[in-house]
Amino acid sequence: MDVLVIGAAGMVGRKLVSKLAAGGVVGGRVIDRLILADVVAPEAPAFEGNIDTVPADLSEPGVADTLLATRPQLIFHLAAVVSGEAEADFEKGYRVNLDGTRALLEAVRMAGSKESYVPKLVFASSIAVFGAPLPEVIGETECLAPLTSYGTQKAISELLLADYSRRGFLDGIGIRLPTIVIRPGKPNKAASGFFSGILREPLAGQEAVLPVDDSVRHWFASPRAAVNFLLHAAGLDTSRLGSRRSLTMPGLSATVGDQIEALRRAAGEAAVRRIRREPDETIARIVAGWPQNFDASRAAALGFVAEKSFDEIIKAHLEDEPRSVAA
Amino acid sequence: MDVLVIGAAGMVGRKLVSKLAAGGVVGGRVIDRLILADVVAPEAPAFEGNIDTVPADLSEPGVADTLLATRPQLIFHLAAVVSGEAEADFEKGYRVNLDGTRALLEAVRMAGSKESYVPKLVFASSIAVFGAPLPEVIGETECLAPLTSYGTQKAISELLLADYSRRGFLDGIGIRLPTIVIRPGKPNKAASGFFSGILREPLAGQEAVLPVDDSVRHWFASPRAAVNFLLHAAGLDTSRLGSRRSLTMPGLSATVGDQIEALRRAAGEAAVRRIRREPDETIARIVAGWPQNFDASRAAALGFVAEKSFDEIIKAHLEDEPRSVAA
Repeated sequence: MDVLVIGAAGMVGRKLVSKLAAGGVVGGRVIDRLILADVVAPEAPAFEGNIDTVPADLSEPGVADTLLATRPQLIFHLAAVVSGEAEADFEKGYRVNLDGTRALLEAVRMAGSKESYVPKLVFASSIAVFGAPLPEVIGETECLAPLTSYGTQKAISELLLADYSRRGFLDGIGIRLPTIVIRPGKPNKAASGFFSGILREPLAGQEAVLPVDDSVRHWFASPRAAVNFLLHAAGLDTSRLGSRRSLTMPGLSATVGDQIEALRRAAGEAAVRRIRREPDETIARIVAGWPQNFDASRAAALGFVAEKSFDEIIKAHLEDEPRSVAA
Repeated sequence: MDVLVIGAAGMVGRKLVSKLAAGGVVGGRVIDRLILADVVAPEAPAFEGNIDTVPADLSEPGVADTLLATRPQLIFHLAAVVSGEAEADFEKGYRVNLDGTRALLEAVRMAGSKESYVPKLVFASSIAVFGAPLPEVIGETECLAPLTSYGTQKAISELLLADYSRRGFLDGIGIRLPTIVIRPGKPNKAASGFFSGILREPLAGQEAVLPVDDSVRHWFASPRAAVNFLLHAAGLDTSRLGSRRSLTMPGLSATVGDQIEALRRAAGEAAVRRIRREPDETIARIVAGWPQNFDASRAAALGFVAEKSFDEIIKAHLEDEPRSVAA
């Protein structure tokens, strides 16, 4: 089977590709060829089968067709302009996150109009499809009411995925990722950046800034869990989804205080002292509109699994990112 | 104020235009010019101000710009390919119902980038944005999970309307219309057609076919109520909507049996005998997935009003469509 990964150079994309290449199997089927696409050509990991790395902007005419040339039976679509950029650059956000996704769906549909072709398509959505006012625990039938252009683009993509699946053009599944922590690498400017930073930096012996109260609650999973969600979705029989093709992934509902206690258990008081409190009203206001907790029982019943504590999330980070930890 | 009506030749569009032209005022402001657009040039009613009738397909390049030439401060967007056609012709449905709507929103945004222009935009959405499985009474935060391409296109348009409004490009309000009965004119092939037919035809002395059980429950309002929703939306201060710009309109939850009893009260047993029962499993199955009842308290609190009985709906039909009634 040929497998196409769009957005293969991103943080989750790289980890997914590395697992696909190492195992050589996905959803019980052997991978013959990996086609890795991103706006810059992704790095190719060691892999026994064929591997193509393609610099590709899905929103440009004809690009989606090219990516489908070998008719990959499994497509991971992770490519997106992130939340902050989609908010700052309205046109770029719609071009990449909406037009790009639609171009992919249309290319699949057109390919299927010429020959039998109904690939599995795993789409990375986001809890940003939900926006305040929200109940304390967000249920499985909560309305999509995003408060960002990014969330709007993800919600629209979910609707398209469901309709194209219903019409039989493809076999789609959308997975709404929690906020991913601990993100490896450098601190970034995302409003959610501190959720990773207050663990990652102290674990690496560096200082981190905490702009909100310890009581702030949010919904988390590790990069490792995110990759497992994608792989599990790839192997899932979608007839179990019915007409609702997008699922809120399981996660951990925890407060900043819970994060700090787990850091103390993992790395001691010295690590906790590296968190500097610098309240930022703008960030506090943005974060206040975010989801705090979900009933993700639908995904859980379908076998998706996330961490159950921040101890587990820190452990995954220490195992998966050994070089980023202070000796 | 200039007022643009897109979809002015449709059933609701014609009734809206006729009321706008007769009153000469909307939302407390005098109408200087009516711009009436549809795929075929709409008829122009008698009107004291200026009136333009324009044949226009929104999804064609540049058409939306042309319609905005005089910078109408109020836009009614009612144009759509109907449910059955959007299901039969996938490409046409997306072109008209999604690309057409997006072209309008983009034209407004681009006009506003050159000069101050933030028109009110009243968008006709539909309860087709909801799909089974549904609760008996559908609440205000029920997820958008359409089961048709038409419903998908309306749901996507709602999401775009909210985002364009949030970004300050326009002042949007989406109103989810109930199934409109009694539609004047000839029977049509829509799956919902019998809801009008079993009243309209017997009232006109003709036979009608009923393909489902008397127990089938659905959500209704008259064409008169639909026009009043649009006019009320045009005058509404949208700051009262918060970030959720689309509203389920009030309606009447009633069964086919309720319809028949109201027909008996209005026109007697002879009229009821003109209903011929011809069960149709396909139609019964389609209708079984439709909403039956809504909590529309949000719209009600904002002053939207619908009929409270089928007696009222029949009365509105007899008053508004005197020529279609048997002597």
